[in-house]
Amino acid sequence: MTRPRLRDLGIAVGRLPPGPLNAITDVAGVRVGHATVIADTPHTVRSGVTAIWPRGPEIWDNFVFAGGHSFNGNGEMTGVVWIAEQGLLASPIAITNTHAVGVVRDAICAYAIRGGARQAFHLPVVAETSDAWLSDPAAFAVTQDHAWAALDAATAGPVAEGNVGGGTGMITHEFKAGIGTASRRVATAGRNVCVGALVQANYGLRELLRVDGVPVGREIGRDLVPSARPQRVESGSIIVILATDAPLLPIQCQRLARRATTGLAWIGGVGFNGSGDIFLAFATGNHVRPSETISALRMLSPDAINPLFQAAAEATEEAILNALTAAETMTGYAGHTAHALPLDRLVEVMQRYRP
Amino acid sequence: MTRPRLRDLGIAVGRLPPGPLNAITDVAGVRVGHATVIADTPHTVRSGVTAIWPRGPEIWDNFVFAGGHSFNGNGEMTGVVWIAEQGLLASPIAITNTHAVGVVRDAICAYAIRGGARQAFHLPVVAETSDAWLSDPAAFAVTQDHAWAALDAATAGPVAEGNVGGGTGMITHEFKAGIGTASRRVATAGRNVCVGALVQANYGLRELLRVDGVPVGREIGRDLVPSARPQRVESGSIIVILATDAPLLPIQCQRLARRATTGLAWIGGVGFNGSGDIFLAFATGNHVRPSETISALRMLSPDAINPLFQAAAEATEEAILNALTAAETMTGYAGHTAHALPLDRLVEVMQRYRP
Amino acid sequence: MTRPRLRDLGIAVGRLPPGPLNAITDVAGVRVGHATVIADTPHTVRSGVTAIWPRGPEIWDNFVFAGGHSFNGNGEMTGVVWIAEQGLLASPIAITNTHAVGVVRDAICAYAIRGGARQAFHLPVVAETSDAWLSDPAAFAVTQDHAWAALDAATAGPVAEGNVGGGTGMITHEFKAGIGTASRRVATAGRNVCVGALVQANYGLRELLRVDGVPVGREIGRDLVPSARPQRVESGSIIVILATDAPLLPIQCQRLARRATTGLAWIGGVGFNGSGDIFLAFATGNHVRPSETISALRMLSPDAINPLFQAAAEATEEAILNALTAAETMTGYAGHTAHALPLDRLVEVMQRYRP
Amino acid sequence: MTRPRLRDLGIAVGRLPPGPLNAITDVAGVRVGHATVIADTPHTVRSGVTAIWPRGPEIWDNFVFAGGHSFNGNGEMTGVVWIAEQGLLASPIAITNTHAVGVVRDAICAYAIRGGARQAFHLPVVAETSDAWLSDPAAFAVTQDHAWAALDAATAGPVAEGNVGGGTGMITHEFKAGIGTASRRVATAGRNVCVGALVQANYGLRELLRVDGVPVGREIGRDLVPSARPQRVESGSIIVILATDAPLLPIQCQRLARRATTGLAWIGGVGFNGSGDIFLAFATGNHVRPSETISALRMLSPDAINPLFQAAAEATEEAILNALTAAETMTGYAGHTAHALPLDRLVEVMQRYRP
Repeated sequence: MTRPRLRDLGIAVGRLPPGPLNAITDVAGVRVGHATVIADTPHTVRSGVTAIWPRGPEIWDNFVFAGGHSFNGNGEMTGVVWIAEQGLLASPIAITNTHAVGVVRDAICAYAIRGGARQAFHLPVVAETSDAWLSDPAAFAVTQDHAWAALDAATAGPVAEGNVGGGTGMITHEFKAGIGTASRRVATAGRNVCVGALVQANYGLRELLRVDGVPVGREIGRDLVPSARPQRVESGSIIVILATDAPLLPIQCQRLARRATTGLAWIGGVGFNGSGDIFLAFATGNHVRPSETISALRMLSPDAINPLFQAAAEATEEAILNALTAAETMTGYAGHTAHALPLDRLVEVMQRYRP
Repeated sequence: MTRPRLRDLGIAVGRLPPGPLNAITDVAGVRVGHATVIADTPHTVRSGVTAIWPRGPEIWDNFVFAGGHSFNGNGEMTGVVWIAEQGLLASPIAITNTHAVGVVRDAICAYAIRGGARQAFHLPVVAETSDAWLSDPAAFAVTQDHAWAALDAATAGPVAEGNVGGGTGMITHEFKAGIGTASRRVATAGRNVCVGALVQANYGLRELLRVDGVPVGREIGRDLVPSARPQRVESGSIIVILATDAPLLPIQCQRLARRATTGLAWIGGVGFNGSGDIFLAFATGNHVRPSETISALRMLSPDAINPLFQAAAEATEEAILNALTAAETMTGYAGHTAHALPLDRLVEVMQRYRP
Repeated sequence: MTRPRLRDLGIAVGRLPPGPLNAITDVAGVRVGHATVIADTPHTVRSGVTAIWPRGPEIWDNFVFAGGHSFNGNGEMTGVVWIAEQGLLASPIAITNTHAVGVVRDAICAYAIRGGARQAFHLPVVAETSDAWLSDPAAFAVTQDHAWAALDAATAGPVAEGNVGGGTGMITHEFKAGIGTASRRVATAGRNVCVGALVQANYGLRELLRVDGVPVGREIGRDLVPSARPQRVESGSIIVILATDAPLLPIQCQRLARRATTGLAWIGGVGFNGSGDIFLAFATGNHVRPSETISALRMLSPDAINPLFQAAAEATEEAILNALTAAETMTGYAGHTAHALPLDRLVEVMQRYRP
Repeated sequence: MTRPRLRDLGIAVGRLPPGPLNAITDVAGVRVGHATVIADTPHTVRSGVTAIWPRGPEIWDNFVFAGGHSFNGNGEMTGVVWIAEQGLLASPIAITNTHAVGVVRDAICAYAIRGGARQAFHLPVVAETSDAWLSDPAAFAVTQDHAWAALDAATAGPVAEGNVGGGTGMITHEFKAGIGTASRRVATAGRNVCVGALVQANYGLRELLRVDGVPVGREIGRDLVPSARPQRVESGSIIVILATDAPLLPIQCQRLARRATTGLAWIGGVGFNGSGDIFLAFATGNHVRPSETISALRMLSPDAINPLFQAAAEATEEAILNALTAAETMTGYAGHTAHALPLDRLVEVMQRYRP
């Protein structure tokens, strides 16, 4: 009874073809897992954790390059100081709610130590968006166990979207949203390259929502579907994780991360003041092992990177839309209800605007 | 016989109202001047200089706050190291072609000294995009005199657009383009605020061009209008200068500058590898005089800045479109011709896509 | 029975006079508290939390400006993405060990909610250095209660140094170290200004240690005093918190933070690869209240900031030295012993090198 | 009759051995050339250009990786936006006076075109410090010919220091200074690596000057040797260019560049407000050819980079001191005289402070 993805509705965005799963897991080695935390007592909780392994369990000893970008930094992403310095990602990534960043972050350190990771210390990447409208912000309900459950649940293959994991209580363009993912395949420098995106989407104004340029938000106004979180647009945010199997350097991962801005803008994200629009890109095409003193690398030439930029923008765009189409109406904290995007209306509007 | 602006065609983009001139000069104190350099012997030259005074001639002793953003830094903007350090803009800005950045930069220093400016040294902002397809890149035809002419020609009031000043030889989305400008008015924090944009647009692929979400570039394909610069999309660029009369701090100017990315994305800019997509925002709402040891300032609160973000994105968007509608077909270096955007087709496509 | 501070030994560094306490608390409104966690069962723990209130409990509704710098980012400081975006610090700061960053970070969120803070979400600053040589890294012994205890213990007045709070298990230049603080008074722009520093010092090679230029580390070799942490120099770090009562803007706080590099270099810090040398400066001279739509501010002119730069370097330098002189020999995890700097030798060497 | 270098005086700084030339040209492929411009009519000119080829004339088609750092950005370095984006250096570097940055920058573009460089456009790196105390700032005497002469004069081998090239009119710690260079050899990752520095030094207060920790500036006070530029300390600056043959990535070059801060601090540089303390590091150990779509690279592991950090700090330190010992007393604009550092006094002070 899950809701369809965007393409299941006959709507395609972008020029490039998606990968087989149209998910970040199309990048070989990437695994995603969710722990969803829903409770009504003692606190109303609509929260969770989503974990992304950049290179399966190998990551502890076989690092990937990474780079970030903050389009609007009203949020938290731990580990970014280290990534800016070293360009390396050496642990799984997690996304959760704002007030659980700490517990999830330490949980990854503990997970590493429990698992016998050889590194002496860990600086994991944990990012957040706020589910404070649907989930009691004073509940502090996410625990180390939830973080470990998300890490353990991670698999290659299709990725659950919408009201799952860290995305459980999230809202986008005033509709219920959550986790979404997509991917693109491109040919460049004589090889096939995949770029995948996973978003935890929790930002934006209804009236700015566009799908392939069509002003869907204006056409499905608040009179038709009441706004989720009418007073809280400012505390929204979006985390975008981009993955590619191309051999990029850290500085090139930073460039890729900046292109999430483009996909976000296409949907209607302007990076409003209260939004933590923070992006991280990693590339599995090189391998950096802490045991090496010299690493042999490959670098995609600057001229060959353009298709990846387009792919990053498109994958981000479609991942946000998948978060919207997948999410179901939810009622939570203080009786608040966040309505899902009405898919029949979406299809109708798209047809009307496309000659 | 000048071509119309976008709104003259009955096409409006964005939600916010423009200022009276719909130009960067709607921000009080801002002056713009052009020196256009067109020659056929001894070299074919289609180039020039556009000068922007942030606060008229007062700028030498009454600085404005400023902040920049490089969305894709394949270009040059001098003065950015100083602006990143101090957050101050203390001289006029100029935009020209890639190989004239130096002469124009030194010319501003000399202009200041000639005019008796009290500062001991100058670190002016000069940015560029490349007109190498329409103008002989070996000509080095722009001189100190041209720079001074642009500075002297600067006025408040309407701004010439299209094939003028630094924009003379520029191309965007494979159509002739150049200089464009627009503005937005917003009410916030109990006051009326203006945000203006001026662009020198020289980037992009035809098929990515969108107007208010409508895929205009796909609809006016290369079969209808041949592409300008078919082999050179990678060496395009766009410079965006944003101005506001709001009392912003330097860090807030940086935030505003980043929103040019949003407007650029709406039109179809992805920041391809060879593009120098470099943005600068300045705010005239505060005054910093080098003679003061303590300056009294005002700061717009973070929560009140959202309308400015929207305005910056919209003004950038419309400025790019004005650069396209204003520019006329031009033939230049090596017989290359850059065709203007056919306005009748534009209107027709827009009508077809808008139910 | 506490050990003396540097000046108690007749050794003064720098040209500027210290404040009355020669501590970060010389900046009015700044409060510091420690929670020290020492245990031998079930795990050997030599750890803790140090809390800094930038403006007492007012901070939740009366923000200070702030800016950071990462000299070598092999560490964690949460909240930096927000500070880079907004230039505001809206909560207390805490410093702890690497694997407790998360619990302390969430504890500050919970403390705010428990205390009725009006902000909807919190992005606190928590930084770390690693005590993994003296404290069992798998213990995870620091709890929310410890974080709250440090917050509650904070006072104006003298600051305990050495083996206290977050500094409990730290080592610097191969001697036992920990928390240190110092301050400087300067006159500029017709007013008296104070700059204070607090460090959690845990970095460096013995042979590079200098005091006022004297090669103390070379003169007190490993033959005389065995090295603490011989194999772990790479995992050291230093956190520097700078405070001033001057009216600085966020961009100026960033500039001040960079000067911690200078003081660190004077002592012998090179920012080795494994070191998280991360600095944050805040300025209490302006008040930003979230209830305001326009804030009235003052800004120290760029030309008047030089004495603060010198003061920041000197306060950092002396704070590190106070961390060294105050810390006592400690034995901890796996029987490791970190020896204190022998003060008699220090005095003797200084006298020998000073004609 | 040239003055000695620091080591010729029996004074050595740092722990690591210098290369055979103790110059940036110890890095294979690096060439340095000067054009010195001295005139008394019609204007008093004490200026020039210093050119650095990172990889001889190959650089146009065989790029090196590079990264920069601005410790205090009150200056200009063109090309930094491109280097921040791409991490590549594709042209020679030049250093000149503040008001000649533009002419030298365009001259490099023209030099490339004249020489048939295959790249369509050029974004060269040109940096500056101000010689306005000894050289008429209104003279604008540096020309394209001077820039080309410096480029053409460049050779491997020993590098002239002091009053030459861009350093002709420069002043440091209130003594005459100019160009200086030094190098260090280190063994890491099973290979021998060289790090070289070249500085154009023009900053600082007398009383802060230290040599190997000895307060030389305090000991050679203004009563003994009058200060050069008493009113202009604020307009000083230092440019540091670091080169290494190690296989570093761009992000690692940025890290190396930051270590120039450490060497500068050891000498007494605090980065005062008016100073443009801007650093660039490049690494020749990788080759990036624009004709490649995939480049094969090597990367020095993070753990193996520590000796290079120490080397960069030491080479910067000694290069500044060589600029001081090599420079001779000069009289220039408006009859101003900048006195050289008295070498006999330097030696005497060093002996007195070293037991």
